[in-house]
Amino acid sequence: MTTAKTTVGIIGAGLVGSGWIIVFARAGYRVRVYDPSPEVRAQLPDKLVTTLSALKTHRLISDVDDVLGRIEVVGTLAESLVGATYVQESVPERADVKRAIYRDIDARISPDVAVGSSSSGIPGSVFTEGLRHAANYLIAHPVNPPYLVPVVELVPTPWTSEMTLGRVHSLMEAVGQVPVRVSGELKGFILNRLQGALLREAWALFEEGYATAADIDKTVSYGLGLRWSFMGPFETIDLNAPGGIRDYAARLGELYLDIALERAHPEAWSEELVSRVERERRQTLPLAGLAQRSDWRDSQLMALAVHRAQLRSVAATEADEPD
Amino acid sequence: MTTAKTTVGIIGAGLVGSGWIIVFARAGYRVRVYDPSPEVRAQLPDKLVTTLSALKTHRLISDVDDVLGRIEVVGTLAESLVGATYVQESVPERADVKRAIYRDIDARISPDVAVGSSSSGIPGSVFTEGLRHAANYLIAHPVNPPYLVPVVELVPTPWTSEMTLGRVHSLMEAVGQVPVRVSGELKGFILNRLQGALLREAWALFEEGYATAADIDKTVSYGLGLRWSFMGPFETIDLNAPGGIRDYAARLGELYLDIALERAHPEAWSEELVSRVERERRQTLPLAGLAQRSDWRDSQLMALAVHRAQLRSVAATEADEPD
Repeated sequence: MTTAKTTVGIIGAGLVGSGWIIVFARAGYRVRVYDPSPEVRAQLPDKLVTTLSALKTHRLISDVDDVLGRIEVVGTLAESLVGATYVQESVPERADVKRAIYRDIDARISPDVAVGSSSSGIPGSVFTEGLRHAANYLIAHPVNPPYLVPVVELVPTPWTSEMTLGRVHSLMEAVGQVPVRVSGELKGFILNRLQGALLREAWALFEEGYATAADIDKTVSYGLGLRWSFMGPFETIDLNAPGGIRDYAARLGELYLDIALERAHPEAWSEELVSRVERERRQTLPLAGLAQRSDWRDSQLMALAVHRAQLRSVAATEADEPD
Repeated sequence: MTTAKTTVGIIGAGLVGSGWIIVFARAGYRVRVYDPSPEVRAQLPDKLVTTLSALKTHRLISDVDDVLGRIEVVGTLAESLVGATYVQESVPERADVKRAIYRDIDARISPDVAVGSSSSGIPGSVFTEGLRHAANYLIAHPVNPPYLVPVVELVPTPWTSEMTLGRVHSLMEAVGQVPVRVSGELKGFILNRLQGALLREAWALFEEGYATAADIDKTVSYGLGLRWSFMGPFETIDLNAPGGIRDYAARLGELYLDIALERAHPEAWSEELVSRVERERRQTLPLAGLAQRSDWRDSQLMALAVHRAQLRSVAATEADEPD
């Protein structure tokens, strides 16, 4: 049983917001949740129980009711802010919707409360410019679901204060997330840009007939993705040449430049191309199977989270032992 | 105790070749190994014992001596071919060296033996053109180490026969590897092109000051890489929109095109850029620590292999159960 820590406000409780609820409540924080939709609010408890039960099955939490006991769904935005030292906003990805919500928040919030937006595309400056507490707002962009994929991109607006950044960074670490700092408002932030670069090459290889979508997928899931599940691309190449990353660049830089030059003319994913990949995917997995396969993905992520936690705990134990 | 299956010849027993020895011997095949260097041949048994002992510690093999007992180091190329139904060549990545070895192989080999090259860059046509048994040769490009990262890229030359491709594909599956088919000789094949695309964006983000190398690494190892360790990029986006991959493309295709257009001018990884990333890496990990960190990487891969095998065995058991 964890003693309740301070309170976090959650505004917007759809797919993304409900993931955040679990992150904070699991870590022992009281969570006050508001969503403008009465339907979303009404359905939330059942959704949370389903997810928390799955986490319990994988022993990623010890008690469903304990976590649920820290979550309170409230009927107004003002109530979600009561006692909150941090607020996570996850309303729909529309500039007008975000602007309206931030005006509301700004009118009600104490000057020492930070607010993170789950925005994956709209820059924070678009909906926080000119607000009284603009220094308190930033983007804290999660990956779905955040309670299983811990990275959070922290993206300041031009007027986000260093104090806000530092406090949200510490809070994210305290709840078990992995914050990364993006120094400015760039399109797609870091994660989606890296994903987009790899996807672009994947689409092109398929389009040119070099491999099936299934074989391109296998090249990642039985190849590149294994190392990348515990170390990043720079560390990977640093360990892939006897003299480290400089040695690697000397050996392979030219090959990679040659390949990049072949790709100097970006094009849209054409309707015909998307249709062809879609056809292959639908033969492997009919549209009706997507939901079940998404559950499978989440269970794989849960098992992986357990596996990674065990390895970290072994490493920590070994580090504690005297030599 | 596995009964010995047919025999595999290994030519070249450096880092890559010694990995292949373990793949085949672990799967129950007799392996006859030749390397032109007497030093490499002399040091091989100790190296194999070290690796096999680590695999035993992780319970990825049950008996070191059983595997070792199937490996024979021989003093000539001709001896390595005796009784072999498949040969894996892993001599140094130089066209003249490869050409000389293939002339030797071609003069001695039976017409029904396939030969796979570990070449990661030189197209097979460069060193097999005009040879008597050219139809029997193809590239079977592994990832290091192949006994832990199972993907193998099969790349035919213009004269590789369908029969050769089919037989090597089946053999690779039989020994627990995951073969993917590349339809022609393209630079970097599939795996390194996907890796190169992601690396290119990573270098650019670092260069522009948007994030540290460490934070870019975390975005993969605590984000993208978790899903990619069990499903590929196409399946990932297929599950990331309610209507599957077509729906995903409709929602995000424009963003990804915008980002790609910003990257329409490929440049070399400059000396100054490489130095800056290297400086950051060397603060995290001094050059002297690379070898130990590589051992850590391999132990993480071993633990991940055990984890993945357990999940597959659970899935297989569940599939066997009546509904």
